[in-house]
Amino acid sequence: MSVEATVRVIYGDTDQMGVVYYANYFRYFELARSELFRSKGGSYRDMEKEGRFLPVVDASCQYKASARYDDLLKVRVQVTEVRRASLEFGYQVRRDGEDTVLCTGRTVHACIGTDGKPTALPESVKRLLTPKDNHGP
Amino acid sequence: MSVEATVRVIYGDTDQMGVVYYANYFRYFELARSELFRSKGGSYRDMEKEGRFLPVVDASCQYKASARYDDLLKVRVQVTEVRRASLEFGYQVRRDGEDTVLCTGRTVHACIGTDGKPTALPESVKRLLTPKDNHGP
Amino acid sequence: MSVEATVRVIYGDTDQMGVVYYANYFRYFELARSELFRSKGGSYRDMEKEGRFLPVVDASCQYKASARYDDLLKVRVQVTEVRRASLEFGYQVRRDGEDTVLCTGRTVHACIGTDGKPTALPESVKRLLTPKDNHGP
Amino acid sequence: MSVEATVRVIYGDTDQMGVVYYANYFRYFELARSELFRSKGGSYRDMEKEGRFLPVVDASCQYKASARYDDLLKVRVQVTEVRRASLEFGYQVRRDGEDTVLCTGRTVHACIGTDGKPTALPESVKRLLTPKDNHGP
Repeated sequence: MSVEATVRVIYGDTDQMGVVYYANYFRYFELARSELFRSKGGSYRDMEKEGRFLPVVDASCQYKASARYDDLLKVRVQVTEVRRASLEFGYQVRRDGEDTVLCTGRTVHACIGTDGKPTALPESVKRLLTPKDNHGP
Repeated sequence: MSVEATVRVIYGDTDQMGVVYYANYFRYFELARSELFRSKGGSYRDMEKEGRFLPVVDASCQYKASARYDDLLKVRVQVTEVRRASLEFGYQVRRDGEDTVLCTGRTVHACIGTDGKPTALPESVKRLLTPKDNHGP
Repeated sequence: MSVEATVRVIYGDTDQMGVVYYANYFRYFELARSELFRSKGGSYRDMEKEGRFLPVVDASCQYKASARYDDLLKVRVQVTEVRRASLEFGYQVRRDGEDTVLCTGRTVHACIGTDGKPTALPESVKRLLTPKDNHGP
Repeated sequence: MSVEATVRVIYGDTDQMGVVYYANYFRYFELARSELFRSKGGSYRDMEKEGRFLPVVDASCQYKASARYDDLLKVRVQVTEVRRASLEFGYQVRRDGEDTVLCTGRTVHACIGTDGKPTALPESVKRLLTPKDNHGP
């Protein structure tokens, strides 16, 4: 199970080398994560209202080819691992209609409560996000 | 009374035209505002702890010449008007050691309380910020 | 004639006050401008390939109400003035499906050539962008 | 050999969780890299003028504790590996005057020429950046 978010590269995302600035892909990753939540009928905003937060504890990106101004990007995201109090997302960025992967990424998130301490992922979230939910009997 | 903040232009601030992206000057303005608070012995963070916030209600920038990657910029800020529940800052951006003004700006801030409603600027802030505080008898 | 761009507010667009950071609206404005170009069959990228650039010379925004994380925003843009070597855009930001204007903005752009000097807007652009193009005889 | 860059956290760097947004640390890393170049008497800008570019091919960050609005951060950077046509930097972020590491990071950069193809790091750059340059006979 994966979801694809769409991003139009604006001038403000590029740098003087004429390509998307490396830090901005992490913004795209976040947009894709929120689309994944929404696609399952929930939203990250709702989870926060219930006192659960998912701060990033580890993030990485491998840059293979450059995205440029005005490109329409597809950011594919899937959950790659679910643990008791953390989960991991994987990302691939492509141009719309192209197969070449421009970059891949990964973020690991702890689940914390309103007290800032690690807490179990809510069942609803585990259900929403488990990558195995399309496995039939 | 004015204060000058120093900003080194990073790659991430530029766009593919090779110059600082227009929205980023508003980030520089904010940095300069916070230095102005600090220069008077207070800090904007402290004011927030006392339940006063200064959201921007109006902002503008006139771009005259471009700042570029690696430039060391000086962002001059002064309070240009103080009203009961709002205040106004003016900005000029130059390269370090040069007279040419790259851009000028202006931000107007409302003073609101924790309930989100307009409230009088604290006396301490008025004192901190009044542009006339160096007028002797 | 106006065009509406859609923006999903991400975490990275907000600040610790829980609302969209003031500078980021100028990014939204840019996205809307590029949609306006595209809606008329051209693209700003193409214009640059022909050696015409439209740097911002003046920008402003009036903030009336706050956009928040996860909001789906509609950014309406129209050309409000066309001159020989410059043009002006106006913007209004609303939440999807709501009438309340969260903020209004304005940007003025010079038209420059590859030598960095002011040059007449290309006829194609004037045609693309003129706000009077739906005025009949 | 390492260098420390200083960053004041602005409102625009934070998100609604009240901490620095995860992508923004990569901006801080870039600032520190450019200080490292400058500290050795060169500048990344000069290297680009000579037709050598150092695009990021891999970047990662481990987030251990949060930086907050108005924090004065120290971003320590050192070269951790030099290869023929690439090099690697390591980063640690702390609050000024504190020992706790808020986050660590790493970026790997390819060296490419004006044709976009991998090319050997210039000798001057190897000399500037080698971590072993303070090893005597």
